[in-house]
Amino acid sequence: MESVGIGLVGYGTVGSGVGRLLAESADEIRLATGKEVTLRTVCELSPERQALVPPGVRVTTEFADLVNDPEIGVIIELIGGIEPARTFQLTALAAGKSVVTANKQLLSQHGAELLQTAEDNGAFLRFEASSVGAVPVIKVLRESLAAARISGVMGIVNGTTNYILSAMAQTGAEYAPTLKRAQELGYAEADPTEDVSGKDAAAKMAILSSIAFHSRVNLADVEHQGIEAVTDVDVARGRELGLVPKLLGVAKLIDERVNVRVYPCFIPAEHPLAGVSGAYNAVFLESGSFDNLMLFGPGAGGIPTASAVIGDVISIVNTAPGGYVGNCTCYKNLGFYPSADVVSRFYLRVRVADEPGVLAAIAGAFGNEGVSIHSMQQSGADDEAQLVLVLHPVREAAFFAALARIEALPVVRSRPSVIRIEGSND
Amino acid sequence: MESVGIGLVGYGTVGSGVGRLLAESADEIRLATGKEVTLRTVCELSPERQALVPPGVRVTTEFADLVNDPEIGVIIELIGGIEPARTFQLTALAAGKSVVTANKQLLSQHGAELLQTAEDNGAFLRFEASSVGAVPVIKVLRESLAAARISGVMGIVNGTTNYILSAMAQTGAEYAPTLKRAQELGYAEADPTEDVSGKDAAAKMAILSSIAFHSRVNLADVEHQGIEAVTDVDVARGRELGLVPKLLGVAKLIDERVNVRVYPCFIPAEHPLAGVSGAYNAVFLESGSFDNLMLFGPGAGGIPTASAVIGDVISIVNTAPGGYVGNCTCYKNLGFYPSADVVSRFYLRVRVADEPGVLAAIAGAFGNEGVSIHSMQQSGADDEAQLVLVLHPVREAAFFAALARIEALPVVRSRPSVIRIEGSND
Repeated sequence: MESVGIGLVGYGTVGSGVGRLLAESADEIRLATGKEVTLRTVCELSPERQALVPPGVRVTTEFADLVNDPEIGVIIELIGGIEPARTFQLTALAAGKSVVTANKQLLSQHGAELLQTAEDNGAFLRFEASSVGAVPVIKVLRESLAAARISGVMGIVNGTTNYILSAMAQTGAEYAPTLKRAQELGYAEADPTEDVSGKDAAAKMAILSSIAFHSRVNLADVEHQGIEAVTDVDVARGRELGLVPKLLGVAKLIDERVNVRVYPCFIPAEHPLAGVSGAYNAVFLESGSFDNLMLFGPGAGGIPTASAVIGDVISIVNTAPGGYVGNCTCYKNLGFYPSADVVSRFYLRVRVADEPGVLAAIAGAFGNEGVSIHSMQQSGADDEAQLVLVLHPVREAAFFAALARIEALPVVRSRPSVIRIEGSND
Repeated sequence: MESVGIGLVGYGTVGSGVGRLLAESADEIRLATGKEVTLRTVCELSPERQALVPPGVRVTTEFADLVNDPEIGVIIELIGGIEPARTFQLTALAAGKSVVTANKQLLSQHGAELLQTAEDNGAFLRFEASSVGAVPVIKVLRESLAAARISGVMGIVNGTTNYILSAMAQTGAEYAPTLKRAQELGYAEADPTEDVSGKDAAAKMAILSSIAFHSRVNLADVEHQGIEAVTDVDVARGRELGLVPKLLGVAKLIDERVNVRVYPCFIPAEHPLAGVSGAYNAVFLESGSFDNLMLFGPGAGGIPTASAVIGDVISIVNTAPGGYVGNCTCYKNLGFYPSADVVSRFYLRVRVADEPGVLAAIAGAFGNEGVSIHSMQQSGADDEAQLVLVLHPVREAAFFAALARIEALPVVRSRPSVIRIEGSND
């Protein structure tokens, strides 16, 4: 039986999970591929981590030992970050070795260079674990849906923010204490910026939308807004409207151009994404060829991520050499569709003076920009009123022009809360 | 560029959808495979359907014309049923042609023979569209999760029954009028037996569990119970308990043996499967390697099914010849775990005489069999009381022994409603 040697760089949580699963599932992998797939060499600097490598597997501190070993056909990169990961991957691919990685930073910023190098050298680059952990959305997009025209991708692709927003919706608590609790429980890191700012989600959406639309989207192309400004009051008002708060990555194909953003938004409670709570992730795909498809699962964790890495290894071993040009999935050079021209639905909450003419002033500001109001609720306290408006779909530029007019009104007493509504057909 | 010719037998709704998508997505397929994939010949008896075949594609009424054409590498069988589909597939595979099919009847009854023939002849057999329409659960199980140990599969795999139960839960209506309405809307066939009896779901679960557990499960191995006996009263009582009715296929790996069944059950409203409503399908996978994974999408329809067929064609074209032994996925010969020994949760509703000693008699019947009661609610009307009990997890044999005792009690005035509860950890 033919055998394929694996080189692995980075033996942390995911790396050691890969080592364990490769050994435990040797039978399953042999049956799935018809080949003997074995972990041959681990490249790892830390002596503590080196000690975790199972007997019979070589340990080295030199990446060159993986590249120069003719028995190694696939190199798994799990060190993360840009360098030296980029150089490692480029070196491996240039030597004709296929690469599997979970590195979302690198893929979302240097994906084009890496995929081109893979293609130029007849090697494969696979990165399922870089976007939605164990959820095989990249494989489904690249292979099962290769012939489907995807028109939209909505993703809950960050477990930390989904945990925080789910908890806020459930308990009614404010953002700050909920974040603190998430940190205590291990759902948020000590420095949660990367997650709560939406940047982590933006990197994943860059990867997913590149595959979905066959056109390169880099991290820098993805506008992102985090959840720091989501308030308990808005979560409560949303609930009254049947809406659930989520940090969504939203990628749309409009007039054969691409718009990819990450922002907090409301979705109807009956939408399939609304039920995705806690640290789970999900990706919702829209297409003309089928109605909607959703994939749901754990977004992170050592073993789920390791499972995705091994799925990629199996995919490479099973792929016809040379036949599959799938590396170069970004063969369309679609432009970007400006966010100002995207038509969106908005929720808006604002505190105003409770005096005659206020409603007319607000309605007038919207009317002047051609923005039409779907529903409005007013509740009073002391001399102040709180207005909650839901608007009909509107070009974003018009909405923000109206918003500027409203913010300038003397009767307006707070900076308005603005949250987009996705997944609604009302 | 290498080219692959496709032969297609059966040009109905799905077949013509495949013809359309193959033409429309020629660019995408070429980029995804590096090969020119073209529909070469259609085998179809009906002149009306023949007329739908696009120009440039040959039409024949002889299946042999597909098998004998050396330019045809992949044959798509979309006529359904056992014969002549079985003979067609066996003939094609024996000639070394790969086969793609949506035929769940055939796969769930003759899967072993077909897969063995494929393997013996170095051909591939793919059948994604046979189980959950456009939802690529077979690919995910076979490839992405090839190394994951799946311990359970729960599936909403029949759109008709899911539509009916969702509508009953939403409107409070009874079964019969809801079925009638579903028929009017085209969600149920004139003869709905195959769907409402659970037999369609059983065939799909046979296919899915064979792949998930790597052990052959045939249609005859899947006990199935339909939704005909689900009442509006039980749906209402379930709602009060936070439970939603679903027809589930439930496949479990217990002590390295397999138990696969289809039955109506309740699941907690917060379970991801509870949000899958209408004609949608979903499959929920449990494993030690990841928490849970769910795939959700349209379960039927010409274009979604055609999209799944084309995903399979791409998979075959991309698979390394000879390398992938994935045809023979049932390499384990696990036995079957008896349903009587499965530990389940039960909901039970029964009408009893409203007289002293009734509760003691019911509780005594359960106690005698070691069945422990989790909760009980009593509501009265006239001289009758209605009891709704939820039991702690119990060996099914013990539950049914207690049930027989209860049915024999003179105070019991109705046949008890019995519904399993899945997806709960209470």
